[in-house]
Amino acid sequence: MESKEFTQIQEIGFSGLVEKFKGFTGSKRPEVITGIGDDSAITKNPDGKLICTSSEIFLEGVHFDLSYTPFHHLGYKIVTAAVSDIFAMNAEPNQVLVNIAIPNKYSVELMEDLYRGLSTACKDYNIQITGGDTTASHSVLAVSITAIGFVEEEKLIKRSGASEGDLICVTGDLGAALAGLRILMREKKYWQDSGEKNFSPDLSDYQYVVQRQLLPKARTSFIKALEKSSVKPGAMIDVTQGIINEIQAIAKSSGCGATIYSPAVPISFETRNVADEMKEDVDKYAFYGGEDFEILFTLKEHEVEKLKTEFEDFSVIGQIEKKENQLLINSGEDSTIKIDLY
Amino acid sequence: MESKEFTQIQEIGFSGLVEKFKGFTGSKRPEVITGIGDDSAITKNPDGKLICTSSEIFLEGVHFDLSYTPFHHLGYKIVTAAVSDIFAMNAEPNQVLVNIAIPNKYSVELMEDLYRGLSTACKDYNIQITGGDTTASHSVLAVSITAIGFVEEEKLIKRSGASEGDLICVTGDLGAALAGLRILMREKKYWQDSGEKNFSPDLSDYQYVVQRQLLPKARTSFIKALEKSSVKPGAMIDVTQGIINEIQAIAKSSGCGATIYSPAVPISFETRNVADEMKEDVDKYAFYGGEDFEILFTLKEHEVEKLKTEFEDFSVIGQIEKKENQLLINSGEDSTIKIDLY
Repeated sequence: MESKEFTQIQEIGFSGLVEKFKGFTGSKRPEVITGIGDDSAITKNPDGKLICTSSEIFLEGVHFDLSYTPFHHLGYKIVTAAVSDIFAMNAEPNQVLVNIAIPNKYSVELMEDLYRGLSTACKDYNIQITGGDTTASHSVLAVSITAIGFVEEEKLIKRSGASEGDLICVTGDLGAALAGLRILMREKKYWQDSGEKNFSPDLSDYQYVVQRQLLPKARTSFIKALEKSSVKPGAMIDVTQGIINEIQAIAKSSGCGATIYSPAVPISFETRNVADEMKEDVDKYAFYGGEDFEILFTLKEHEVEKLKTEFEDFSVIGQIEKKENQLLINSGEDSTIKIDLY
Repeated sequence: MESKEFTQIQEIGFSGLVEKFKGFTGSKRPEVITGIGDDSAITKNPDGKLICTSSEIFLEGVHFDLSYTPFHHLGYKIVTAAVSDIFAMNAEPNQVLVNIAIPNKYSVELMEDLYRGLSTACKDYNIQITGGDTTASHSVLAVSITAIGFVEEEKLIKRSGASEGDLICVTGDLGAALAGLRILMREKKYWQDSGEKNFSPDLSDYQYVVQRQLLPKARTSFIKALEKSSVKPGAMIDVTQGIINEIQAIAKSSGCGATIYSPAVPISFETRNVADEMKEDVDKYAFYGGEDFEILFTLKEHEVEKLKTEFEDFSVIGQIEKKENQLLINSGEDSTIKIDLY
């Protein structure tokens, strides 16, 4: 090899690495409709139903901090993260497989607590834990989860189905999970600096945002409302890395551009309060904060009212544009930020 | 809670922990035929085909040692481990999802090498990598893999289908992967003790066993031969934790006992040589050595000859007995070891 033989991952980023991995995907199976690149992979069953599969890995110290995350909340959140990707295809998850690598500093009781959280979430989402692998770790706790679900072909909603003129909508409100994380990190720092052994912070003013961080729920009510309303979004994605990232994914997969009206982006009162306290820009929470597990989707203009009769908790925040417009963030004042997609 | 609140995992072992986890499996879905407890979970499709799913996690320092494991071999082996569980149900794997958590000491090139190994294996097994998650790790490399496959209901072979009088058979030979590991560990120790920087051990005498450790292959040829022969084993399992463990799993799942004739257990010349060199009992390698990825199965007596016409590389090593006999290991001399199953 004449080329550079040690490229650090940060030089190309994880998305750059995934792009490289796409060149190594084994055999091309005829029944695989979508591989790497949507919320879940899609495979066609012999009977015409589609199977959606999605998998994620969570590591202590990277994806969760056990100094403020109860094990049963962690279990719940991991299931939410896994099934949210399946719901985002308009599919119904039915099973998860859970792999856990456990360092010996954790007890049987704590691991049961983790599993109790996994199981509670699975009951809420009506899915079964069908298997997995339980093993030792010499370092941190690692949990990997794979969710599997089904959808009829005509119901499937991919990232790539948006068209010019479609309205961009999002359920609930955004940035709350990051606001909760900010509070938990601040309290952790306070606790570490204070040297107190039994520190019990008063989080009563921050209940909503802390709950959004520690115990997020996938938007099943929205998926059920879609079913009832007979409205079918063009494109859909769950909000796990912030809406700017998700809108980019929809626009690029659909070969379009997009405009976001930032004053229309739904932000809760509690999230605004946290940003004020932290002296930070609340729009950054809403645009780039991850793990909200809301659903971003596109609708034809006439479908908005139709959906509202079944489900009210969503906002129109922008519009799909032609490709050349790239991604515009319109603040409603003079300033417009342009992000190049192509 | 009045009960003990910190039980160390080693007090009950990982199998004890999994038993506890079985109490927390979320909803009971009607389409799930087998959850935790066989090589893979089995779910029924609307069209009658069964979906088999299996998931495993591998951690640096626990499941692999990168000082003697090339990344592309590691990738290959991980796929083998995942699909072997699907083949062991007599099913055909079609996709895997791969999650990787990467510490920043590893380069893009090394990770491509890992993926190249994953992809080569997937091509050999005719499956596609459909997705997964790629993320950072602050500690070790962790790889989690989920394999998904299909089987027609009448072809499915579970662990629980053995009956009294069935012969116990195994493909290939046993203990070679452990023999290979012993050699690699010896050479690593020699390298560490020597302080040499560029140490390149001569492994030419150990090629077979080292290959069995580093680059194991799932027994697809056996599964294909079964299809052709129209012989259907009563029970089947892949050998990943040593045959004593696997025979126990089959006997207990089937509500039976078993006898193993230890002189009949197939062991290669090379494996015997390594055990001699190490001054260890080669039967221990064959009985308790893991990761051979051979297939253990049960046949009616008259089926043995029928299968031999399609596939020769298997040995009859024992017989399924009534439950009360427990598990007997018959050395052919005076000694018989009894392991209580119930």
